[in-house]
Amino acid sequence: MWFWRLKTSLSVSFRHIRKCTTYTKARQIWEIISSKPPENGVPLKLQGWVRSIRSQKEVLFLHLNDGSCLANLQVVGTPDMGTSDLTFGSAVHVEGRLLPSAHPGQEVELHADRLEVIGPCNAKEFPFKAKKRHTMEYTRQFPHLRARTNSFAALLRIRSQATSAIHKFFQDQGYVEVHTPVISSNDCEGAGELFQVEPASSTVLKEISEDSGKETKHFFDVPAFLTVSGQLQLEVMASALSRVYVFGPTFRAEKSLGRRHLSEFYMVEAELAFTQTQEDVMEVIEMMVKQPTEQILASCPDDLHLFYKFVSPGHREVVEKILTSKFIRMTYTEAIDILRKHSENFKFRPEWGHDLQKEHERHLVRHCGSVPVFVTDFPRDLKPFYARDNGDDKTVAAFDLLVPEVGELFGGSLREERLETLQDRLDRLGLSSSYQWYLDLRRYGSVPHGGFGMGFERYLQCILGVPHIRDVIPFPRFPHSCKM
Amino acid sequence: MWFWRLKTSLSVSFRHIRKCTTYTKARQIWEIISSKPPENGVPLKLQGWVRSIRSQKEVLFLHLNDGSCLANLQVVGTPDMGTSDLTFGSAVHVEGRLLPSAHPGQEVELHADRLEVIGPCNAKEFPFKAKKRHTMEYTRQFPHLRARTNSFAALLRIRSQATSAIHKFFQDQGYVEVHTPVISSNDCEGAGELFQVEPASSTVLKEISEDSGKETKHFFDVPAFLTVSGQLQLEVMASALSRVYVFGPTFRAEKSLGRRHLSEFYMVEAELAFTQTQEDVMEVIEMMVKQPTEQILASCPDDLHLFYKFVSPGHREVVEKILTSKFIRMTYTEAIDILRKHSENFKFRPEWGHDLQKEHERHLVRHCGSVPVFVTDFPRDLKPFYARDNGDDKTVAAFDLLVPEVGELFGGSLREERLETLQDRLDRLGLSSSYQWYLDLRRYGSVPHGGFGMGFERYLQCILGVPHIRDVIPFPRFPHSCKM
Repeated sequence: MWFWRLKTSLSVSFRHIRKCTTYTKARQIWEIISSKPPENGVPLKLQGWVRSIRSQKEVLFLHLNDGSCLANLQVVGTPDMGTSDLTFGSAVHVEGRLLPSAHPGQEVELHADRLEVIGPCNAKEFPFKAKKRHTMEYTRQFPHLRARTNSFAALLRIRSQATSAIHKFFQDQGYVEVHTPVISSNDCEGAGELFQVEPASSTVLKEISEDSGKETKHFFDVPAFLTVSGQLQLEVMASALSRVYVFGPTFRAEKSLGRRHLSEFYMVEAELAFTQTQEDVMEVIEMMVKQPTEQILASCPDDLHLFYKFVSPGHREVVEKILTSKFIRMTYTEAIDILRKHSENFKFRPEWGHDLQKEHERHLVRHCGSVPVFVTDFPRDLKPFYARDNGDDKTVAAFDLLVPEVGELFGGSLREERLETLQDRLDRLGLSSSYQWYLDLRRYGSVPHGGFGMGFERYLQCILGVPHIRDVIPFPRFPHSCKM
Repeated sequence: MWFWRLKTSLSVSFRHIRKCTTYTKARQIWEIISSKPPENGVPLKLQGWVRSIRSQKEVLFLHLNDGSCLANLQVVGTPDMGTSDLTFGSAVHVEGRLLPSAHPGQEVELHADRLEVIGPCNAKEFPFKAKKRHTMEYTRQFPHLRARTNSFAALLRIRSQATSAIHKFFQDQGYVEVHTPVISSNDCEGAGELFQVEPASSTVLKEISEDSGKETKHFFDVPAFLTVSGQLQLEVMASALSRVYVFGPTFRAEKSLGRRHLSEFYMVEAELAFTQTQEDVMEVIEMMVKQPTEQILASCPDDLHLFYKFVSPGHREVVEKILTSKFIRMTYTEAIDILRKHSENFKFRPEWGHDLQKEHERHLVRHCGSVPVFVTDFPRDLKPFYARDNGDDKTVAAFDLLVPEVGELFGGSLREERLETLQDRLDRLGLSSSYQWYLDLRRYGSVPHGGFGMGFERYLQCILGVPHIRDVIPFPRFPHSCKM
């Protein structure tokens, strides 16, 4: 009752506030363009950056972009508005009236009563030029300005929509989002090289030591690292909330400079209690690829069109195939059999017990008709300690998902929930003492569970056909480079 | 057209998948409880953890919880199902049929045909006991198990809903979410002590040096730190996309062990291009407090009720007042005038040019009737270099939002967009050379803009009335402590 009263009174006040905002502030181009019916005759203020200028005897045409969508709005002014400050890249404030446009593909244009350059732009020094398509290699040199290009702005909008679609997928299915920690004292998961964290100023350590009355070498008393995966902490939460996920940054201190590697990247990880088989987890993954992708296609048609037309022609069909196909399932052993029949094509001989190389992954995906392929039941020695033992003394219930062009996109497994089996494994690896808390999860109401992780940037590469991972993240970090 | 066809065909296949999932898998309690009309007679599987057991002559009552909601489902079995393994905290699998319940407040109960303990729990060693309310100080000692308590599970669900509500607020208003980097080479913003990042293994540095043919002391060639704020990178993006936000982790290497400080915490930051006044930014903040809070109240009534009943009685009224009041605005100078009239109450004498102390913040909020207060136009020397100069040679367009109980919840400002003014400021501070990229944003189409940051954990403290910040984050990090 209380909630209801509150809700009613608030929604009234919000409407009020929102109305005021719209009225007194400048409008965004996406609002103007998506307004149905078109707002002919409406007087408004508009602010944005100049994308093109065409001056004729009687009339001045401008294309303005404000980053709210790919489209520019055409502004029609008088020639005297064309001052020397009005250049490509400058920021302007326009007041005028919307009128029907003769321009095909745009229903309205803004007829300017007043036009003011609020932020000039030295067009000679500005690294981007009017009407020129810059390569991704070129724009990558200007991380603080590249969002001013059509393609990178489109990427950022798609990335935001993709993030939103993935959250929606999990929330709709009752998953609880958990912020697993970035700084972690787990150091022995073996997922890759770690970054270590300590205060930049040694004074802090001294203060902390004095504070506690005992000397310490570390801010947290123990060595602390940037997370390589939130999985173990997610398992903690799945052991109480059943379904959990995290969408956050993860780190690798590796020297790799490849097209699929970054030192800082985003992972989507989920953990489900009460699983029975790898299939339970793979079903969720298949939906988690298809539903958000479908939503992105529906919500960003123009931005995607730019990619499929100019960046990766033909890629739309690749995505369409992923969406309309049932993903293939095969065991690691079957995969090796397939690969061995084509041994002559490979630099690395496919052999049971060895990891799949990129060339093998590519072959398997092609072999399956360029449809995503789950490779399941990997050899125990190729997967981390927590993967559930299949009981055949050889394999574990762990799998990868391989996709066209990108290769490995997901890794997942059932987790070993049997206390004794896990204890044995940790003992053999000499890890028992640091994982008592992890064993506790198996001591107090242990349940079968499983989960997966997906590299978010690779997902974007997969749906957009962007070759280099540095072009799908706002501020790429890799060896030798940490700009801004 | 293509999208439409795709969408139709997919939504058919998703329905198919979802139906299979529901049918073959165990159900979650929130689905069962929220099902209208109640699913009387439906056979189903259920899995969860035992919260209570009551054995009578003819019948065995269990309360099961699976973390999907606060409520337990009552299970009715036969006395022979009560094996010695069936204890508080154990995990069970039940198959049975839903029937109308005589229990008040629950429409259905599960009559068990089969009950199996899948994960026993040594109730003596398990740190939580049946029907006992544990204090937050006590549960905090078991970060890997505390999600098994009602109150921390409720906190996690509310935290997830709050995250979702904040994303929804920004997405609805056309903001683009930007993942600003966690690792950053900005080192002089002065927001606090920094954590520095290097590879844990020195081998990596050696490899990188060899790789590039020149020796390097740092993985990224320059010192790199954990971010204290994504603001500067958000400004980059607002200079192209107009409205952007980030919801991510930030870090402080400070020795503080207080109730409002963590070494790793979450910040919500937004940046808006084309602002005119501080009011433009404050309006967004006021909506950003009210709309998501209203949504959380509507989506988590039971979990919130637990807090308002047991953790912070009376706090519901505090929140209701925040939601229904117009936030107060006063300048810093007015605030100092108010405080000086009550100087005798304070340990720290309020004086123009000095920072507000916690006791001052508390007084100002009480003075305004326990309504949130914006304190605007701070002295220039108290705010960072980027705050926009008011032109009075004294103050800048920067403000804080103070809220009941928590104190400072938001900080925000207009950013200096005038090239010369900013250049002068940076020159005086000796920072010009490291901020050329930041000056570039003012060289190429600069626009007036502003933004804000909110500490997410403090927001949760504010709406839940939780005194200690360590009780609103899954894995708290602070000096001497980085568990798991």
